[in-house]
Amino acid sequence: MNFSSDNVSPICPEILAAIGEASDPALPYGADAASQQLDGAFSDLFGKEVAVVPVATGTAANLVGLSALVSPFGGVACHHQAHINRTESTGVAFYGNGAKLLTMDGPSAKLLPETLDAFLTRENTHGMHSVDPECVAITQATEFGTIYDVDEVQAIGRVAKAHGMKFFMDGARFANAIAALGCHPADITWKAGLDVLSFGATKNGAMAVDAIILFDPSLHARVEKARKRGGHLFSKHRYLAAQLLAYVKDDLWLRNARHANQAASALCQSLETLGARAAFTPQGNELFVHMNDDLAERLRKAGLVFRPWPAVGPDAFRFVSGWNSPIEAIRALPETL
Amino acid sequence: MNFSSDNVSPICPEILAAIGEASDPALPYGADAASQQLDGAFSDLFGKEVAVVPVATGTAANLVGLSALVSPFGGVACHHQAHINRTESTGVAFYGNGAKLLTMDGPSAKLLPETLDAFLTRENTHGMHSVDPECVAITQATEFGTIYDVDEVQAIGRVAKAHGMKFFMDGARFANAIAALGCHPADITWKAGLDVLSFGATKNGAMAVDAIILFDPSLHARVEKARKRGGHLFSKHRYLAAQLLAYVKDDLWLRNARHANQAASALCQSLETLGARAAFTPQGNELFVHMNDDLAERLRKAGLVFRPWPAVGPDAFRFVSGWNSPIEAIRALPETL
Amino acid sequence: MNFSSDNVSPICPEILAAIGEASDPALPYGADAASQQLDGAFSDLFGKEVAVVPVATGTAANLVGLSALVSPFGGVACHHQAHINRTESTGVAFYGNGAKLLTMDGPSAKLLPETLDAFLTRENTHGMHSVDPECVAITQATEFGTIYDVDEVQAIGRVAKAHGMKFFMDGARFANAIAALGCHPADITWKAGLDVLSFGATKNGAMAVDAIILFDPSLHARVEKARKRGGHLFSKHRYLAAQLLAYVKDDLWLRNARHANQAASALCQSLETLGARAAFTPQGNELFVHMNDDLAERLRKAGLVFRPWPAVGPDAFRFVSGWNSPIEAIRALPETL
Amino acid sequence: MNFSSDNVSPICPEILAAIGEASDPALPYGADAASQQLDGAFSDLFGKEVAVVPVATGTAANLVGLSALVSPFGGVACHHQAHINRTESTGVAFYGNGAKLLTMDGPSAKLLPETLDAFLTRENTHGMHSVDPECVAITQATEFGTIYDVDEVQAIGRVAKAHGMKFFMDGARFANAIAALGCHPADITWKAGLDVLSFGATKNGAMAVDAIILFDPSLHARVEKARKRGGHLFSKHRYLAAQLLAYVKDDLWLRNARHANQAASALCQSLETLGARAAFTPQGNELFVHMNDDLAERLRKAGLVFRPWPAVGPDAFRFVSGWNSPIEAIRALPETL
Repeated sequence: MNFSSDNVSPICPEILAAIGEASDPALPYGADAASQQLDGAFSDLFGKEVAVVPVATGTAANLVGLSALVSPFGGVACHHQAHINRTESTGVAFYGNGAKLLTMDGPSAKLLPETLDAFLTRENTHGMHSVDPECVAITQATEFGTIYDVDEVQAIGRVAKAHGMKFFMDGARFANAIAALGCHPADITWKAGLDVLSFGATKNGAMAVDAIILFDPSLHARVEKARKRGGHLFSKHRYLAAQLLAYVKDDLWLRNARHANQAASALCQSLETLGARAAFTPQGNELFVHMNDDLAERLRKAGLVFRPWPAVGPDAFRFVSGWNSPIEAIRALPETL
Repeated sequence: MNFSSDNVSPICPEILAAIGEASDPALPYGADAASQQLDGAFSDLFGKEVAVVPVATGTAANLVGLSALVSPFGGVACHHQAHINRTESTGVAFYGNGAKLLTMDGPSAKLLPETLDAFLTRENTHGMHSVDPECVAITQATEFGTIYDVDEVQAIGRVAKAHGMKFFMDGARFANAIAALGCHPADITWKAGLDVLSFGATKNGAMAVDAIILFDPSLHARVEKARKRGGHLFSKHRYLAAQLLAYVKDDLWLRNARHANQAASALCQSLETLGARAAFTPQGNELFVHMNDDLAERLRKAGLVFRPWPAVGPDAFRFVSGWNSPIEAIRALPETL
Repeated sequence: MNFSSDNVSPICPEILAAIGEASDPALPYGADAASQQLDGAFSDLFGKEVAVVPVATGTAANLVGLSALVSPFGGVACHHQAHINRTESTGVAFYGNGAKLLTMDGPSAKLLPETLDAFLTRENTHGMHSVDPECVAITQATEFGTIYDVDEVQAIGRVAKAHGMKFFMDGARFANAIAALGCHPADITWKAGLDVLSFGATKNGAMAVDAIILFDPSLHARVEKARKRGGHLFSKHRYLAAQLLAYVKDDLWLRNARHANQAASALCQSLETLGARAAFTPQGNELFVHMNDDLAERLRKAGLVFRPWPAVGPDAFRFVSGWNSPIEAIRALPETL
Repeated sequence: MNFSSDNVSPICPEILAAIGEASDPALPYGADAASQQLDGAFSDLFGKEVAVVPVATGTAANLVGLSALVSPFGGVACHHQAHINRTESTGVAFYGNGAKLLTMDGPSAKLLPETLDAFLTRENTHGMHSVDPECVAITQATEFGTIYDVDEVQAIGRVAKAHGMKFFMDGARFANAIAALGCHPADITWKAGLDVLSFGATKNGAMAVDAIILFDPSLHARVEKARKRGGHLFSKHRYLAAQLLAYVKDDLWLRNARHANQAASALCQSLETLGARAAFTPQGNELFVHMNDDLAERLRKAGLVFRPWPAVGPDAFRFVSGWNSPIEAIRALPETL
């Protein structure tokens, strides 16, 4: 039972099969038939015409996607815990040709609309000496496993638009968020004013693909050029497309995410039964708990793999479930131990 | 018979099997067992300790690899036909933080040592106003399907080193070059003074992986950081490793390349029989021919796919064979038509 | 009486004369006789061999100087009020090829050694995902007009070095700090482990020149290239040199700074007499006071120019004195009003 | 008689006086009265509303100005002898966030319209793999001292616009060109489709100022931001403005340029009398001659300073005259020797 990351899970069978089936000769660089279906498939999924630019990593999806929304002189307002701020090297400035992260705090890694509003009011000087925010970025589900509900995303979107900002979402775990919220994907994206979404698949059953979803298709040419220059344009592009098409077919993305969410929920119950305490109510597939060393040791001896997470607290640990987490065994943990 | 690119071919069976077999949980970001074997496998292959940094595209391998060899104020001396100059957007300046391509001419897309020597003598001003060359880059096999022989690479390397240059090789079709030359991979790499090689696999049977080979392992930390910042660090890194390990196992890389080379050679014979004329003696898996529109039309009607190539001439066309090109059918072409 | 900035003051007579006197033909780009004297003049001033690279603005001095101390993947630890963070656009990332500002808080715009120590301990992950700090930067005098004393700078330097950091000082008002401290310039620079100082002159009587002082002369070649690429290499370089040589001759820099400091001190007394309250004990030539709108209005009517400063508080204002501020009239203010 | 560069000449009296007269307190960063007059003064000069952004060096004027006309993925088509290509480090890629120089040849450092047309037709692939030209840049007067006549500039402009290109002129010696052509400044700028001009003053009598002239004032905000980020926004901005206002007042710029042009012309005659041969018909203030070592030695002994110029030929030398070159002494040279 390896909960160190959702990245430890392998390719799920449906996606592996789709990779194997893409065996006919095909035009390179996205001119193949599978790639040509992407815009349509995701337009259906979101209920709106979108343009889709797939890349192989979530970091690339964030960096290339964000780069279309901020000038070399501008800032990206986000939570200081944001993955783009904490875990993507100097990538935002790199792809953004200098663009800067402007961070604020908020409970459980979430931006509060009122905090954001005050921040944008204060920081947007319309000047040239300082860095004016040009874009708001949130992560859904957040880095602490919490999930903005529909009203919260829409409130953030309203504040962003009232200040003339672009709006970006790091959706590395977007599927987990939708599975938890039960809403339509449109509700927390374009209906909330979102411009670009990084739509994760790698953590949720794919081998290596995340999709940049452009709700404003006019951004397409620029994003294509940024992708090419970054070295992210696959020659055998069909293998990115094949993964994504299998991922959204028959709601595989949601089924995988629901499974992972249930596993995290079950794990939370089991760990609380054993004496741990959830740091935040787990909504997606990431669980942060406080527990003592003794329990941690017992869990490790029972074969669980997980990581300490000092950003949450000195006695805090992170557990991440995946599409293949063994829910029954998780439920049985209190008994097993 | 699709000869429009080697990228039209699918994953070869051995590599597809390796992807499927990588199904156990594994640590992310290169800490898994397969990834840990890469340095050893390639050190064996090259007969020297190397560090290996895999990425998913050849462009990324070139750009990230080159970035370790040139300062933001320096230049990369190369042939004007070089892929890094013609086909990688403004990527060299992007990853090189401003580094500039300094181009020269040479027959059949190859640099001549004496041309290079004169170029470096003239352009290296040791000043601050102009851009001094800091690195020499060649492509092997070249963009025109020709291949530097061992002496030629070593002569280039000597010139480069005599001028204090770093030495880089774009080896997107390195396997085809080794298959054609029959030499040891060491002979045209570190024994010729090479610092970094972009070792291609994608065009030769892999799904999406090219390896940055660092003959100076002290470059490793910097290249890792450049890879991460560029968004090229796979979370499920094992799938890059699995492809590469399968690729070099039992000389698969050479077997695939030999097949493709033979196919190109057979195609050359067939097309010449039909009245075409090779622009350059084909040595690898790329064939450039001059032919009239009538022949081109007949070939297309027979189901061949290929592309005009104006850089070689107004009546020139490019044919690229792959690991799965049907050699018997190619040989039978004159008859078939 | 214009206290809106020290930039409102004109060129002081000694420096204007020096500009006028530089009328013989002279070699461009720093090869002239005046420019050749810079290293010597500043080595004398600092009691140590230094290399000097002059530029025309303080922002350029900061950005070009800092760029030699941080990699494209690294961070610069500084106070969030730092000029490099608040007032230099995205310049640090621009000249630093992506380098990121990592900010912390501290009283009156000063870093506390213990805060810095904890920050560097926490943030330096020696990893590749996050941005590791590589350099510590402080401003002396600070953005709030306060001044680190000798012990404080040396304590910061010790912490920086203990963590393997480079150490940079934004000395746009370095002269005011030395004038206030009465110490030798060496005491708060190289003797405190400083690597690079941006030595201001523009705000203190020059027309347009700040000097990048390299306490490690081996940085010289890189800084020269960064200056050239940034467009900051003057062809008529002697006019930068002439200003700087006049500035350090006969302690002009200190005399100008002492005058400005005294003016600020006198202004503080006068304003407090009138009912204002200093936000921080003024040590240099910047004064921040809290006062009510009524007093502000009376001062404006009396011809004083100054600016509100919301970063210090809703009722806060900034006054900056210069080398030519009229001390007697300032002292007479309570009476005048 | 120092002809090594026009940069060896000092500030001309009118401009020095203007610097000295700017002694009242003034708002910083361009909010002062002199700076506010710039747009008007240059709009008058060009007969069209323009926006003016002054910087202290010609390289900065080129780099900041060009950066507004090309995307990070695009190219600047220019002559391979262009200053921006040969003498500005990697500055175009730096300020252009990766933008690339695309070079071609042409007689006496001039682009021919037909060559440019063929070049743009061939290189503009409207693709994402290669770098498409987005801007055409010429130097007027050229790096070889030649000058495009009005028809030539307008022909270049027509070709540029027909291909959808922006059009930029490096006018470091624009005054010399206008003085030689006798045309209105409008004729070779906005009436020829020019978008941005780098208008030189430093080489022609100023201390340190070149003006970025935006014929499309909507570029202003972007250029301001690029200037600030580059560290080129003067705090005491009035000293840039004072130089420029004095420079264009009473045609000082043209008078200085005419003097320098006459000096070059006289020098050409004198040197030809002595046996040298002009490489190009000198039109501005740069003269390139072929001569033997013996004559070169005699000239050096007579006190002339000048530089060999291998780009023009092994026996070629460059002489540059300035606003203060001693025309009588130049005419008397054959006699003096």
